[in-house]
Amino acid sequence: MSDHDAYVPPRVWRWEQPSGGKFASINRPIAGPTHDQALPVGRHPLQLYSMGTPNGVKVTVMLEELLALGHTDAEYDAWLIRIGDGDQFGSGFVEVNPNSKIPALMDHTTHSPTRVFESGAILLYLAEKFGELLPSEHTARIEALNWLFWQMGSAPYLGGGFGHFYAYAPEKLEYPINRFAMEAKRQLNVLDRRLAKSRYLGGEAYTIADIANWAWYGQLALGRLYDAGEFLQVQEYRNVRRWAEEIDARPAVQRGRMVNRTFGEPEMQLHERHDAGDFETRTQDQLEAGS
Amino acid sequence: MSDHDAYVPPRVWRWEQPSGGKFASINRPIAGPTHDQALPVGRHPLQLYSMGTPNGVKVTVMLEELLALGHTDAEYDAWLIRIGDGDQFGSGFVEVNPNSKIPALMDHTTHSPTRVFESGAILLYLAEKFGELLPSEHTARIEALNWLFWQMGSAPYLGGGFGHFYAYAPEKLEYPINRFAMEAKRQLNVLDRRLAKSRYLGGEAYTIADIANWAWYGQLALGRLYDAGEFLQVQEYRNVRRWAEEIDARPAVQRGRMVNRTFGEPEMQLHERHDAGDFETRTQDQLEAGS
Repeated sequence: MSDHDAYVPPRVWRWEQPSGGKFASINRPIAGPTHDQALPVGRHPLQLYSMGTPNGVKVTVMLEELLALGHTDAEYDAWLIRIGDGDQFGSGFVEVNPNSKIPALMDHTTHSPTRVFESGAILLYLAEKFGELLPSEHTARIEALNWLFWQMGSAPYLGGGFGHFYAYAPEKLEYPINRFAMEAKRQLNVLDRRLAKSRYLGGEAYTIADIANWAWYGQLALGRLYDAGEFLQVQEYRNVRRWAEEIDARPAVQRGRMVNRTFGEPEMQLHERHDAGDFETRTQDQLEAGS
Repeated sequence: MSDHDAYVPPRVWRWEQPSGGKFASINRPIAGPTHDQALPVGRHPLQLYSMGTPNGVKVTVMLEELLALGHTDAEYDAWLIRIGDGDQFGSGFVEVNPNSKIPALMDHTTHSPTRVFESGAILLYLAEKFGELLPSEHTARIEALNWLFWQMGSAPYLGGGFGHFYAYAPEKLEYPINRFAMEAKRQLNVLDRRLAKSRYLGGEAYTIADIANWAWYGQLALGRLYDAGEFLQVQEYRNVRRWAEEIDARPAVQRGRMVNRTFGEPEMQLHERHDAGDFETRTQDQLEAGS
């Protein structure tokens, strides 16, 4: 099966820096902080430390949905954590998320501030705190949680698997690309079959399961991730696309997509968000700053 | 960086059967059932359809813990789903878990039976149903949920990443093995640092976060997964090992590890569990059956 000399792993794995790929500089075999760096704290109850990746966007969409529902105590400061620059290894960030990944949230309204990390945990936390976007009825609630956890356990195969080997690895390797393309398509088909029978993943109501899955699979089906729309033939997943387009059209989703975003059109990038008015005033500032 | 001709992905990915590896026959780019097969239903309130993998063991340990705490309504039938034989693609199983993965749970005590899939969702479901192993105090509850979601989002890099490329792929590929070995070690170090400061992941109390993480990282640190103890130098993670050994010693964990187990010593295998007495009567039956 090999067209080159077989690799034999050593008895003991050793870290040889640098290993390759776009994110080589931020991949390490050890955890913990690399430098002292306190986190800023703004004036709002909720402090978000994040970046506009699919996992980051889950939380900014959720917060914008909560504000749109009238929960003024969901006001938040969104600080940009530039993962390419290693901000996630600062001591302050590691105290909020010892895993050094975005997003991470601090809730300053609780008796002592509460740290929440992992995007799925943050969605569940906010849904329960505000009593929104997670049904209270037993069956609907459990079905939404099924799909929330499904997203958390599945997307690593899409992002850390398919996306890495197809778009970011220093060399195109056939076996890993095949393996993870097959799994990405299977996952899209899992969702497509569900959404053929149900308006939203949990049932008739839009929930945190939709926000979590839209961020990855909805955006994948719309051709936004890894420039892989043709390769994965995402247009086949018609129910996923119908659902993704419906979510995409929500004003809160449009705002949430802009927050902490550092790529794409400048007018879509709101690097930090500290006030609801930032969305309107942002365009001119960004263009003048040339960012 | 290449010692062989570069692979160029096609414009459109196509399924070429069979692709390789130990689990090639059960990897597909499409979801849904492959054959009609109803699931058995036993006499207990909870019906578990599973196999003794780390994700499966999470749930059997949880159920045995609940029974040990005196919750007689946590009695369960554990049916064996042989994933190597494709049982997870039977129509009945797909109705319980459209993702065709173990474990999957049906709760027959609710007004209409409730399906629960994804091991993390099942742990949360059972913790909330019985009011056990997830603290009610705010900070402790959230910290446990942080680590529960952390496990769900991290272990795919260990199982579907490291384990696959190190132990199961048809060919040893250096780059993927390096990438995922580095991540597996980083994850172990994340836990090791947490457990240096805290008896359990959520704090002073044993919770579903410990059960979920013990199943993967505890067992990895004890050298049970992928024959990779030396390669990953798991003995370095002393706090993980201290914690894993403490959990390992719990009688409920010892029972949970036996359920739906199809590998290792015959006296450790209880292929199906329908009664608390099965643990005692099992050894002789199994030995006589030669399984």
